[in-house]
Amino acid sequence: MKIIFTFQPKEEFVSDLKNSFPEVGFLFYKKIKEAENELPNAEVIVTMGEDLTDDHIEKSANCRWIMVTSAGLEKMPFEAIKKRGILVTNARGIHKIPMAEFTIGLMLQYAKQLQSVWKQESDNVWSRRLPTSELHQASLLILGAGAIGGEIARLAKAFHMRVVGVNSSGSPVEHFDSMFTLETFTEQLPHADFIVSVLPSTAKTKHLLKVEHFEQMKDTAVFINIGRGDLAEESVLLEASGKKLIGHMYLDVFEKEPLPKGHPFWLNKGITVTPHLSSITKKYMPRALDIFKKNLTTYSKKSEGYINVIDAERGY
Amino acid sequence: MKIIFTFQPKEEFVSDLKNSFPEVGFLFYKKIKEAENELPNAEVIVTMGEDLTDDHIEKSANCRWIMVTSAGLEKMPFEAIKKRGILVTNARGIHKIPMAEFTIGLMLQYAKQLQSVWKQESDNVWSRRLPTSELHQASLLILGAGAIGGEIARLAKAFHMRVVGVNSSGSPVEHFDSMFTLETFTEQLPHADFIVSVLPSTAKTKHLLKVEHFEQMKDTAVFINIGRGDLAEESVLLEASGKKLIGHMYLDVFEKEPLPKGHPFWLNKGITVTPHLSSITKKYMPRALDIFKKNLTTYSKKSEGYINVIDAERGY
Repeated sequence: MKIIFTFQPKEEFVSDLKNSFPEVGFLFYKKIKEAENELPNAEVIVTMGEDLTDDHIEKSANCRWIMVTSAGLEKMPFEAIKKRGILVTNARGIHKIPMAEFTIGLMLQYAKQLQSVWKQESDNVWSRRLPTSELHQASLLILGAGAIGGEIARLAKAFHMRVVGVNSSGSPVEHFDSMFTLETFTEQLPHADFIVSVLPSTAKTKHLLKVEHFEQMKDTAVFINIGRGDLAEESVLLEASGKKLIGHMYLDVFEKEPLPKGHPFWLNKGITVTPHLSSITKKYMPRALDIFKKNLTTYSKKSEGYINVIDAERGY
Repeated sequence: MKIIFTFQPKEEFVSDLKNSFPEVGFLFYKKIKEAENELPNAEVIVTMGEDLTDDHIEKSANCRWIMVTSAGLEKMPFEAIKKRGILVTNARGIHKIPMAEFTIGLMLQYAKQLQSVWKQESDNVWSRRLPTSELHQASLLILGAGAIGGEIARLAKAFHMRVVGVNSSGSPVEHFDSMFTLETFTEQLPHADFIVSVLPSTAKTKHLLKVEHFEQMKDTAVFINIGRGDLAEESVLLEASGKKLIGHMYLDVFEKEPLPKGHPFWLNKGITVTPHLSSITKKYMPRALDIFKKNLTTYSKKSEGYINVIDAERGY
């Protein structure tokens, strides 16, 4: 069996795979272009998910399984895949740990006013008069209650926060005290100390947040967006910040990334820009390949119970 | 019944106390000196714990209960109190929430390299190449496994850390995976990613940590001291940092506070100074007075079950 990687993992992962599956012929290419001649022989393709085209699927006449080592599937040629009945699995779920830690880290750093503490420290100033607060019994509204939102909620409950969530159905989710929908969540805005969005970009979520939503929030509220950059128009975020409608914004995602030099977000005191950091972790590849290895064992045994099977019809 | 406060709480607390206990005559003084004439009439004295002397105890001939609205008891005249058999209670336990949040906040801000992120942000630099890590499955060694250490451990377990603790007996404590004593903990030093001390100052803990202990730690380890400043001599901390024996130190407590201007700790890149912030919270006084009110109800009813009774013999 030949398995083609359309990216080059580090040597430690390569040798781990070869040792774990000595019967498999692994072929590693830096990019799909270099792999094209071997595609017809590949039984399995492992990809980061942004390089496959209809043409590649057609060439891969013997392909029976595509493993996507990310969670993003927007660029996958699902029409061609569906016709051929190729199994698709991805690395869904591996983002939740770094993203939840990042979110709690931002909330704590705001509550403990650590940016001011580091400023004081660099000035050698000993001052204990900082408006610090606690996560304890503060209210958290999470837009998006999937794997990532659920992990944020689980940690927030450990800090004894009140946690309200938003999903499409409004039905109960573990670790959330109560749930609302995209149609009903606005009534929760006046109660939240922290509002975190992990929403994906869909027709319903694009430019969902308007200035009127920020007007309903507490003037001390902290808004954190680690979902998608098109949740609110840039002009909305700038107006909300300019009018000091809330306490602070942490923006990790943007309509255009990287955020250009000189963009007003960089310069606005009420906005902290982070460069799409929330999911970055050294453990990304080990976790993605761990899912791949488990699925490869299932595949080799012609067994059942694949992790993260994607429905090519729905695209997720 | 007359109750004397040797400090002046904010008006909201004063009116809450008067409304809750209309039968009590509360007298509030800014300092004990102003209260001296009334001491002989006081049945209860409420103090921050640093102002009472043998002389005051002698004057307070009718005093039957002293409520200390802090956790520190080092300056209490326990000999005189013991002779008179006066009940002493304190506000032990109210520090655990802010101190545990502060500690997890520091660990996350280190793991996510947030100090570098804010530097990049102020320079308008979009760079995702930061050596970030996770708390997930990292190892935490907590010196001191009382209320504060236990709360840090509880939160650390929510982050799926491995948590090892140190107490005087080495016997099991909830939320800790395993326990060691001050005599046996050094074997754990090579395994810890984070070492947090919440130890009090005692004959056994004073200058406990030597350079050889830092030599045994991982060169990536992070040391956080929120306990007492005399856990290690300043020269030890400076040598450990100067030799880059570990990754970073966060020092919140010092042998002399405030830390003087120009002190090498301020200037050392491997040391971050925070001005004894860990327990600071807006909720301090509400929590301390909540304990006082519960105990006052017990006292008024001549009932039993006081919260936080201090053994005047042992001093804690």
